[in-house]
Amino acid sequence: MELKPTKPLSGFIELLPVAQRFVDVCAARMLGVLRTAGFSNLDLPAIERAEVLTDKDNWDEIETQMFLFQKGDTKMGLRYDGTVGLSRYVAGHLNDLTFPFRASQFSKRYRGERAQRGRYREFYQMDMDILGINTLSTNYDAEIISVIQRTLNSVSDFIGENYVRVGSRPFWDALFDYLGLNSAQKKDVFILIDKRDKMGDQDFAEGLSDTLKNEKLENEIKSVFINGYSNFVKKSDKLDAAINELNDFMKKLNDFGVKNADIDLSVTRGLAYYTGLVFEFKLSTYPELGTVAGGGRYANLSEKFSKTKIIGVGAAIGFSRIFVALIEAGKIDLSKFESPVVAAVLPMGDVAVSFAMSVVNALRDENIATVACLDTEKKFKNQIEYADKIFAKYSLIIGEDEVNCQQITVKNMSTGDQEKMSLRDAVKLLKTEQ
Amino acid sequence: MELKPTKPLSGFIELLPVAQRFVDVCAARMLGVLRTAGFSNLDLPAIERAEVLTDKDNWDEIETQMFLFQKGDTKMGLRYDGTVGLSRYVAGHLNDLTFPFRASQFSKRYRGERAQRGRYREFYQMDMDILGINTLSTNYDAEIISVIQRTLNSVSDFIGENYVRVGSRPFWDALFDYLGLNSAQKKDVFILIDKRDKMGDQDFAEGLSDTLKNEKLENEIKSVFINGYSNFVKKSDKLDAAINELNDFMKKLNDFGVKNADIDLSVTRGLAYYTGLVFEFKLSTYPELGTVAGGGRYANLSEKFSKTKIIGVGAAIGFSRIFVALIEAGKIDLSKFESPVVAAVLPMGDVAVSFAMSVVNALRDENIATVACLDTEKKFKNQIEYADKIFAKYSLIIGEDEVNCQQITVKNMSTGDQEKMSLRDAVKLLKTEQ
Repeated sequence: MELKPTKPLSGFIELLPVAQRFVDVCAARMLGVLRTAGFSNLDLPAIERAEVLTDKDNWDEIETQMFLFQKGDTKMGLRYDGTVGLSRYVAGHLNDLTFPFRASQFSKRYRGERAQRGRYREFYQMDMDILGINTLSTNYDAEIISVIQRTLNSVSDFIGENYVRVGSRPFWDALFDYLGLNSAQKKDVFILIDKRDKMGDQDFAEGLSDTLKNEKLENEIKSVFINGYSNFVKKSDKLDAAINELNDFMKKLNDFGVKNADIDLSVTRGLAYYTGLVFEFKLSTYPELGTVAGGGRYANLSEKFSKTKIIGVGAAIGFSRIFVALIEAGKIDLSKFESPVVAAVLPMGDVAVSFAMSVVNALRDENIATVACLDTEKKFKNQIEYADKIFAKYSLIIGEDEVNCQQITVKNMSTGDQEKMSLRDAVKLLKTEQ
Repeated sequence: MELKPTKPLSGFIELLPVAQRFVDVCAARMLGVLRTAGFSNLDLPAIERAEVLTDKDNWDEIETQMFLFQKGDTKMGLRYDGTVGLSRYVAGHLNDLTFPFRASQFSKRYRGERAQRGRYREFYQMDMDILGINTLSTNYDAEIISVIQRTLNSVSDFIGENYVRVGSRPFWDALFDYLGLNSAQKKDVFILIDKRDKMGDQDFAEGLSDTLKNEKLENEIKSVFINGYSNFVKKSDKLDAAINELNDFMKKLNDFGVKNADIDLSVTRGLAYYTGLVFEFKLSTYPELGTVAGGGRYANLSEKFSKTKIIGVGAAIGFSRIFVALIEAGKIDLSKFESPVVAAVLPMGDVAVSFAMSVVNALRDENIATVACLDTEKKFKNQIEYADKIFAKYSLIIGEDEVNCQQITVKNMSTGDQEKMSLRDAVKLLKTEQ
C-alpha cells in the first residue's frame, strides 16, 4: 500500500513543539496586554455564509481568493479576516453589548490564493476594535495605537522595537477635491497610491500619467511622497482640516505615551472599511517583515447588517506573519523553549510505579511540570537518556530502595549532582524552578 | 438595500462576552493541567488533503459528513478530529520528536452533517496522546485517565464530579472467538454493540437475532450487559487474558489515584483506531451530557503514513459539548464573569484626557485591567453609568481639580465610597483586587 503524504498542504503552518512553545508564550503575553486593556475576547465561527463574506456574485473570481463550499442550498466559506464576522456579530447583539464595546479576537484566518513565500493560506491575526454607536471620540484611535504598541512591546525581547506611521484618508479626499479630479480619477488614483509600495516609483508614475494625463497634477500628487502635506497648507479649508486633525492626533499620541510615531501620508490601508485616520506598525530590527500591524477608523462598520450606525476604530496584528517568519528566518533563539518539563520521574521496575505515580501526582498538584517515564522495562541508562532528551531539569529516580524508605533520589540534570530526599523536600526544591 | 443576516450558520457557536470569559477560564485551567503533565501543545492545520481525512472514494457520501472543497487539482477538507492530523504530523517528524511523545491539542473541529440539537458543526475538543515507537507500557493508559480526571477536576466547581468506565476491545475479540462467530458476524455484532446505546434494548436484540439466528449465542452476548464478564471466566485462555488485563488495569488506576473508576464492557468507542482498552468519562451531576471524554489505545497510529509502528494511547475531551451545553442549559452562574475590568478611568472633559491616559498606562503597567472612557464630551452621569454597565469595580474620576493636584478620585462602585488619592495609592488599592 502506498503511504500517504506527511507534509501539510502548501501555505499551511505546523511547528515543532519547541517553536510552538515560543509562539504560545508570545500569544499569552500579548493576550494578557489586551485583557489588561479591558478588551473582551470573542471567538467567532471560522465559517460564514458566502453573502456575509462578500457582496460580489462572481464566484469564479472570488473562489481564487477564498475557501468556499456549499452545503445543501447554502454557500459558505472560511473567514479571511476578523472584521467581517465582528460586523455581523455586533449588529446581531446591539442590545447585549455595552458601547463603547472593546472586542479582541485571536483566531485563524484563511486565504484561498496560491501560497507564495511568506504568504500563508491559514494564519493567525490578533484583532482589537473599539466600537461606538453613532459617535466615538478619536481619543480611542490614539488608545488603540497605544495598546498595539504595548502588545508589541510585551514581546520586544524577541522582535525588538516598533514604530508607527499615521496616514489620513480625509487628506487624500481633500487633495483630490482641491486638484479637481473627477470621481473616476479619484478612485483610480487612490488605487495607485494604495499599490504604490508594491509597484515601485516608475510604474506608479506611469499609472498616474495614464490616469491624469496632466503633468502638473501628477507632480502635485508625487510631491506628497517627498514632502508630505507641506505643499498643501492653506490651500483649502478641507485640506487644512485634514492636516490639523492629523497634527492634533500626533500630539495626542504623544500624550498617550506612544513612542516612535510619525505622519506618513503614503499609509492608506487599502480600499475597504477605513474612512478616517489609518496607521501601520513596522519593526525597526526587521523591516523586511513589512507591516506587522495596521488599522484605522471606519465610519459605519455594520451597515450591511443593521440600520444602527456603528463607528469603530480597529486594528489587526499579523501574528503568524511576525512569529512564523522570524522562526523560519532563524532569528529566534529557541533554546529557552526546549522543554516544558521540570521533573522526569523515573521508576526502576514495576515495583516502583505505584510510589512513582504518587510522586507524579504530588508534583502536578503543586503545578510542577512533571513527566512520568512509565516504560519500566527500560534500563536505567535509557530512562536517564530520555530525561535528558526531553530537557528535564531534574530526574527523580525511584527504585526499590527509594520505595522502601519512601524517599526520592533527585538528580540535577545540568550539574549531575544527586541527593536522596523526602517528597516534601523535593517539592520545595522543584518549586523554585517553576 | 436588504440587510444581511446577523445570526451565525446553524450548528455554529458564538457566545456573548460574559459566556466567552467563562469558557476561556475553563480552557486556561484545563490547559494548565496538561502543561503540568508535560504535554506539548500542537497547533495543526484545520485543512487537510482529502486523502489524509479519509480512505474512501465515495465523495458524495463523505461530503455529507465533512466540509470538502477543491483548489486547483487538490481535494481538501476541514478536520473532523485531532487524531487524523496527529498521525500525519508524527509520521512526518519521527526524527524531530522524542518518544514517548506527549502531544496535546486544543482546536476547532468540523462536521458537515446537518446540525441537530446539541450537535455542533464547529466545536472544540481537547486531545491528549502519548505515543511510543514499537512499544508503550499500559501504565500510560492509566496515566492518560489520571490526567483527564485531573483536567476535569480543575473545573469541578462548574461541572461537578466525574466518573470513568473502562472497556476492553480484546475481551470482545476473545468472546467472539469463544462463541465461534465467523468474521462477518464478528463485524456486524460489534457494530451493533457499538450502537447499542443509541438503538435501545429491543432494536439491539432484534439486530442480534437477525445476525446470529441463534438464541443461545444471542443470550451469551446480552449477558455481558447484565453481568459483565462473569459468565466467561475460565472459558478460554484468550478470554482470561483479556479479563486479567482489565482487572490489573483497574488496580493500576487505583494506584494512580484515579477515583470513580469501574469496568463497563459496553464501552467500545466505535470502530476506528482503538485496539486495546477503551474508556469514557461522564459527569455525575450532568448525565444528560453523555460521554464528555473518551479514548483508548491504538496499535498502529500512523500506518497510513509511515512504516514505523507508532503505538499510542489517546483521548479527547468534548470541550464545547460540555461548556456550551451547560451554558445553554442555564447551569452556569455567569455573574462571576460579568467583567474583566477592575478600573474605569473617567476623564471629565478634554483637559483631563492627558493625565487620565497617564493613569491608564500606569495601571496597565501593573496588570490592572483598565478601561479608558474617552468620550470626554459625555456628561459625568453617563460616564459613571458606563462604568457601572461594564461592571468596573472602581471608577477613577479625573476632572480639572484632579489634574491640578495630580490626584485621582477613586470610587468603589459597589459601596459607592469615594476618596481622593495619589496614583501610587490608587495602584496599591487596585492591585489587591486583581
